[in-house]
Amino acid sequence: MSERTAIFPGSFDPFTRGHHDIVMRGLKLFDKIVIAIGYNSKKHNRYFDIDLMVEKLEETFKDEPRVSVLVYNKLTSELARELDAGFLLRGLRNTTDFEYENSIAQVNHYLNDGLESVFLITAPQHAAISSTIIREVHRFNGDVDEFLPYKL
Amino acid sequence: MSERTAIFPGSFDPFTRGHHDIVMRGLKLFDKIVIAIGYNSKKHNRYFDIDLMVEKLEETFKDEPRVSVLVYNKLTSELARELDAGFLLRGLRNTTDFEYENSIAQVNHYLNDGLESVFLITAPQHAAISSTIIREVHRFNGDVDEFLPYKL
Amino acid sequence: MSERTAIFPGSFDPFTRGHHDIVMRGLKLFDKIVIAIGYNSKKHNRYFDIDLMVEKLEETFKDEPRVSVLVYNKLTSELARELDAGFLLRGLRNTTDFEYENSIAQVNHYLNDGLESVFLITAPQHAAISSTIIREVHRFNGDVDEFLPYKL
Amino acid sequence: MSERTAIFPGSFDPFTRGHHDIVMRGLKLFDKIVIAIGYNSKKHNRYFDIDLMVEKLEETFKDEPRVSVLVYNKLTSELARELDAGFLLRGLRNTTDFEYENSIAQVNHYLNDGLESVFLITAPQHAAISSTIIREVHRFNGDVDEFLPYKL
Amino acid sequence: MSERTAIFPGSFDPFTRGHHDIVMRGLKLFDKIVIAIGYNSKKHNRYFDIDLMVEKLEETFKDEPRVSVLVYNKLTSELARELDAGFLLRGLRNTTDFEYENSIAQVNHYLNDGLESVFLITAPQHAAISSTIIREVHRFNGDVDEFLPYKL
Amino acid sequence: MSERTAIFPGSFDPFTRGHHDIVMRGLKLFDKIVIAIGYNSKKHNRYFDIDLMVEKLEETFKDEPRVSVLVYNKLTSELARELDAGFLLRGLRNTTDFEYENSIAQVNHYLNDGLESVFLITAPQHAAISSTIIREVHRFNGDVDEFLPYKL
Repeated sequence: MSERTAIFPGSFDPFTRGHHDIVMRGLKLFDKIVIAIGYNSKKHNRYFDIDLMVEKLEETFKDEPRVSVLVYNKLTSELARELDAGFLLRGLRNTTDFEYENSIAQVNHYLNDGLESVFLITAPQHAAISSTIIREVHRFNGDVDEFLPYKL
Repeated sequence: MSERTAIFPGSFDPFTRGHHDIVMRGLKLFDKIVIAIGYNSKKHNRYFDIDLMVEKLEETFKDEPRVSVLVYNKLTSELARELDAGFLLRGLRNTTDFEYENSIAQVNHYLNDGLESVFLITAPQHAAISSTIIREVHRFNGDVDEFLPYKL
Repeated sequence: MSERTAIFPGSFDPFTRGHHDIVMRGLKLFDKIVIAIGYNSKKHNRYFDIDLMVEKLEETFKDEPRVSVLVYNKLTSELARELDAGFLLRGLRNTTDFEYENSIAQVNHYLNDGLESVFLITAPQHAAISSTIIREVHRFNGDVDEFLPYKL
Repeated sequence: MSERTAIFPGSFDPFTRGHHDIVMRGLKLFDKIVIAIGYNSKKHNRYFDIDLMVEKLEETFKDEPRVSVLVYNKLTSELARELDAGFLLRGLRNTTDFEYENSIAQVNHYLNDGLESVFLITAPQHAAISSTIIREVHRFNGDVDEFLPYKL
Repeated sequence: MSERTAIFPGSFDPFTRGHHDIVMRGLKLFDKIVIAIGYNSKKHNRYFDIDLMVEKLEETFKDEPRVSVLVYNKLTSELARELDAGFLLRGLRNTTDFEYENSIAQVNHYLNDGLESVFLITAPQHAAISSTIIREVHRFNGDVDEFLPYKL
Repeated sequence: MSERTAIFPGSFDPFTRGHHDIVMRGLKLFDKIVIAIGYNSKKHNRYFDIDLMVEKLEETFKDEPRVSVLVYNKLTSELARELDAGFLLRGLRNTTDFEYENSIAQVNHYLNDGLESVFLITAPQHAAISSTIIREVHRFNGDVDEFLPYKL
């Protein structure tokens, strides 16, 4: 069987322990995982700097050669074609996530029918921690170290 | 990387086109898929005979050597250990499924921490067709052929 | 435009104020509404007697000639064909209802593609009152009059 | 029975095949359907031009005299009063839609108690395609023709 | 302010660590908590013996004089009146729980308008462990000690 | 038992009858309730003026000495520490609320483990009325008095 490459797409503003858990568990399933940060300097108004996030992610996965990190600004289905990736890896935290991911998965499949979306359910201890909440806590100088797989 | 074996567990009363779609898509992800029909002759009161279902499934997948079928009466996490299977494959149709599967996945992981539950979202044209509805239609002599990947 | 007939199917064990509200509002939409009680003397173990329920419903709607009541034991899609009814009328109380009704609607449409399922959202003051809860309250001799459009 | 007019309100940025399906099925239920595009030039920042959308809709429904198109900037309940429309027609795709629509329906009923909200469930093949996703695909020059009932 | 007594009702077949967590957290809110096991020897077919469960619960809470245990066979709203309890304490695990509890709470409030239902969200590490799943694991001789606040 | 103080946090833009109902019911449970309006003049773009809202709330609760009102601009968990409040009081309207509140509650508990989130389910007649919908109705000069516990 040929190599199985998965893209793990997101805005990762920031990348959380929940995301980290999905990537590590995904490595049992895929030969390679590409963490792909969707970013458009004109459209996206990030809270955590994009360069900082790439740096933190490369550091976090520096001992895991099967994981790579990139920034992209195109359709995820198009990126998958370019990288010859047959899979999208996604974490599901709750039913709100599910309905959103369901829509995205159907559309990605329509745009690139060789692309399969694969889901792992986020571990319960990580499921409450969204990037949105982390930004809110950080904005008020709350301690977010516990929610991240790296030191800010 | 060693062989990836997934169990696709269920009562399959009956096995539907939705189930078939999940298995076929799962074959891109796994080297082997074991369709495992949970059955206890004392507890379960099946509508479709267990032997008939095994026969139909073996016929359906006869050209797919990577798929096998078995009947079991134990914890799924225990079966996975015996078969040296590292994955459970499951389809998600809607948010009700999601919450049920979330619980089952956490417990299976607790009982066998080498066991990862992997989810594919059921294709929209199949998502409405549950085994329960097929039994109800069949009970009233409605035509269920369209919902099954084999002829009854 | 030809006459619009809707079937309002259910087990109605018992028929509640919530059901009554859906029928009355449905009369603005349909020329005729047939309240169709699904019942199989061998399979269904009703709490409220089927004959009593028919009697109470006929009494409740005795001044509304556009509403009729019947008991049936076949596929709803088949009943619709026999009655030349183009619509199923259903009430939605919450998201659990929605996913169940979604499945049923797709299958009914498949079995009878001239059959359209139409939904009204149950008024909030009635949405909590399911037939299941009424049976539970009645079993313990609680007062259920407030939940029913007729006197038991 | 007097004429039944329904308003099908939305921002329709853009109007999708899913919306089209709801209108066509709604024509079995209503004598007239008014597609009403909510738009405020100061508040709304549309992706697809409002004039283009009106043009595309008029073209799409040019052979269907019972469907009309208008742009409005007031409460939907108020528009219904002006048009003497007794119904709002809405499509439901999933449980997230349901809870939103439930709130809107209760408030509209409060503001105009002669106004009934009527729901059809979006056909499964269209349920994943939201206007939001179409805009995202179009922004990256992806092909969206398949999702629209007209050529852009 | 007078004493605040809460009933924590359920079938508790069995009482789980999740239930235990809710009671302990509830003690910050209430002066007394009555764990009330709904049981009808004719109707309920328990998996874990009712006497065993009472014994285990009394042992579990033997150092907590503000917690008591009883078995009842009547409406919960009626029990609350008899015990002069103004509150029902309930744990919420997920959205399916929410909709069920919403219905029950409205009906209890109707039957006894001095009765307020109060909810705590089950801690994530316990949310997956339902009594149903524990029975299933136990039936197959799986180890359930981790899920219970006492030794079976 | 020491005094039980709860914070009822929100943006309250505006404070609705649903919010009012939660506070009044919460008074049975808590000795003191602090209505805490989260507000940052740089970040938040309120529709209803913050000073007006404080004034209306103080007027609304002027006969209830156990309720106070304040404006804050920090983490809610931090405010709780400062006020020596052990509880957050929150209303739940539907499943979308539930998942959001579940996340917030876990994070607040992490940031301040002496802080317990307590939930009451919004009464059905108020559950549809969100602050968002009230703003939309008000923007179009619709009558919102029915949705507010004070006169604007």
